[in-house]
Amino acid sequence: MSRQQRDALDAILRSAPRSEVRPTPEEQRSGFAAAVTRPAPEDVVTHRAVLGGRPALELEPAEASGRGRLLYLHGGGYVIGSPDTHAGLVGELARRAGLRATSVDYRLAPEHPFPAAVDDGLAAYRELLASGTDPRDLVMAGDSAGGGLSIATLLAAREAGLPQPAAVVVFSPWADLTLTGGSIRSKESADPIFTEADLRAYADLYVGAGDRAHPLASPVFADLTGLPPLLVQVGANELLLDDAVRLAGRAGADGVEVTLEVGPGLPHVFQHHYGRLDEADAALDRAARFLTAHLSAGRPAVDPLEPVH
Amino acid sequence: MSRQQRDALDAILRSAPRSEVRPTPEEQRSGFAAAVTRPAPEDVVTHRAVLGGRPALELEPAEASGRGRLLYLHGGGYVIGSPDTHAGLVGELARRAGLRATSVDYRLAPEHPFPAAVDDGLAAYRELLASGTDPRDLVMAGDSAGGGLSIATLLAAREAGLPQPAAVVVFSPWADLTLTGGSIRSKESADPIFTEADLRAYADLYVGAGDRAHPLASPVFADLTGLPPLLVQVGANELLLDDAVRLAGRAGADGVEVTLEVGPGLPHVFQHHYGRLDEADAALDRAARFLTAHLSAGRPAVDPLEPVH
Repeated sequence: MSRQQRDALDAILRSAPRSEVRPTPEEQRSGFAAAVTRPAPEDVVTHRAVLGGRPALELEPAEASGRGRLLYLHGGGYVIGSPDTHAGLVGELARRAGLRATSVDYRLAPEHPFPAAVDDGLAAYRELLASGTDPRDLVMAGDSAGGGLSIATLLAAREAGLPQPAAVVVFSPWADLTLTGGSIRSKESADPIFTEADLRAYADLYVGAGDRAHPLASPVFADLTGLPPLLVQVGANELLLDDAVRLAGRAGADGVEVTLEVGPGLPHVFQHHYGRLDEADAALDRAARFLTAHLSAGRPAVDPLEPVH
Repeated sequence: MSRQQRDALDAILRSAPRSEVRPTPEEQRSGFAAAVTRPAPEDVVTHRAVLGGRPALELEPAEASGRGRLLYLHGGGYVIGSPDTHAGLVGELARRAGLRATSVDYRLAPEHPFPAAVDDGLAAYRELLASGTDPRDLVMAGDSAGGGLSIATLLAAREAGLPQPAAVVVFSPWADLTLTGGSIRSKESADPIFTEADLRAYADLYVGAGDRAHPLASPVFADLTGLPPLLVQVGANELLLDDAVRLAGRAGADGVEVTLEVGPGLPHVFQHHYGRLDEADAALDRAARFLTAHLSAGRPAVDPLEPVH
């Protein structure tokens, strides 16, 4: 059954119109919003907020319990996407984890190139701490560019002397803007969404003539020492497969507790397709358990001999 | 608390005597047996058997339920180790998974060089199938050289036209006998057990003048297409860290459902230290759940929408 779901999804993704001329960022933003936006689940209440000086969307599941908070950074190549396009995905993760979430509308390129997004991620994280959130009650997540940005934000927090959160989850992270992963070529025909030119165009808009190997732009090249437990989920049918594998390998080598999950036959950020792709629901459930297990692990009431994930 | 456990274990491992002259294989075997052997748990009954023409140890947990079977291949650089040295480790995994296990005494080098071990692994697997075990009821596991050998056995089974088992778990697999992983150098001081010379000596004894990059000797160079769901667990303080990371990356690229877990501060096959190292118990619990979840996933009675791990 899921094989049929995967094949159907692949066909839909491949049927998306592709113009010869690359659309403007504004055209890409509206096209992306029309194609991917799914509303928050019915039992998740949303409202507008401001965090770190940027607009944000708060998502509160009816069954949110306790003090746990999730900070989310959406994907879209640092150029497109918003908390609204990701309201469904973030709401599903928040609901399954029973966590209040805040999804930040960080500044986008090309209007605001690197490191504007990192500055906004750090400002949001800093304000959550400043407003009294215990870092042991705080977890982070992001997808695609927002996955790379989540790692960059934690690195910036470390450099700023801030404590790390309890855990971080990234879906299909874009973590190498120099595009040196072997899967950029080897998965060219398997990836139903991206071409190398698509990724290069996003990198051009975000970093321009800057250093694409900067650790805050391409965290596969960063020293990841001190980051919290990390879960990386990725599809096998992705140009960005090797970004995920190398990020996990780098994290492990730097002493980070890391879990990598590669799902066969799955496209970029397949978690977007919850409710119609079994693997998406299962992956979101595992991500939610990973986050909540590490939240509870920081609490003295829990038996430290109990496995935490 | 676990930090103290890890540090204590590291000190114990580093205190092992090292002679200037490399001991003979026989001396290594008796030294290894004295150092690592732990008996099977009390509630696991063991008895001698023969499988695929080789001696084997059967381990039957009191709470073994159903038809599930575990085939285990022990570690020891293809030169040392036996089902007896690993009775504790395999018994613990079998007990936690509720599975009857068979641990095979495959032939060792230098008396029996490559591919004798692979031949014995395949013969054992073939006999389990021939004796009526449904491959959907069968899972496989191995550690260190036995981890690489588990993958090689599945590749040999694939080439022989045999069906794959339901899942496979490898602890700290040795999967590159050419020793090209970056961690061979970068983890030199962090690894309390191995030096590069140790690994090279094992590879010399097992492959000699043969092709060390052969896919059945070094499965990081194999096409892993068609292998069953794979869980790879490894410590960060290992020369072999990158064998695990690259094996997982290769498996993912080849369309295998794969999970990689890297545990900070942990040595080679840290699962041996169950009962005195929290991470070992947690890792064995996760490995057991992974195996049983994939066993049940092959049964039509299970709701296919239920996440399987």
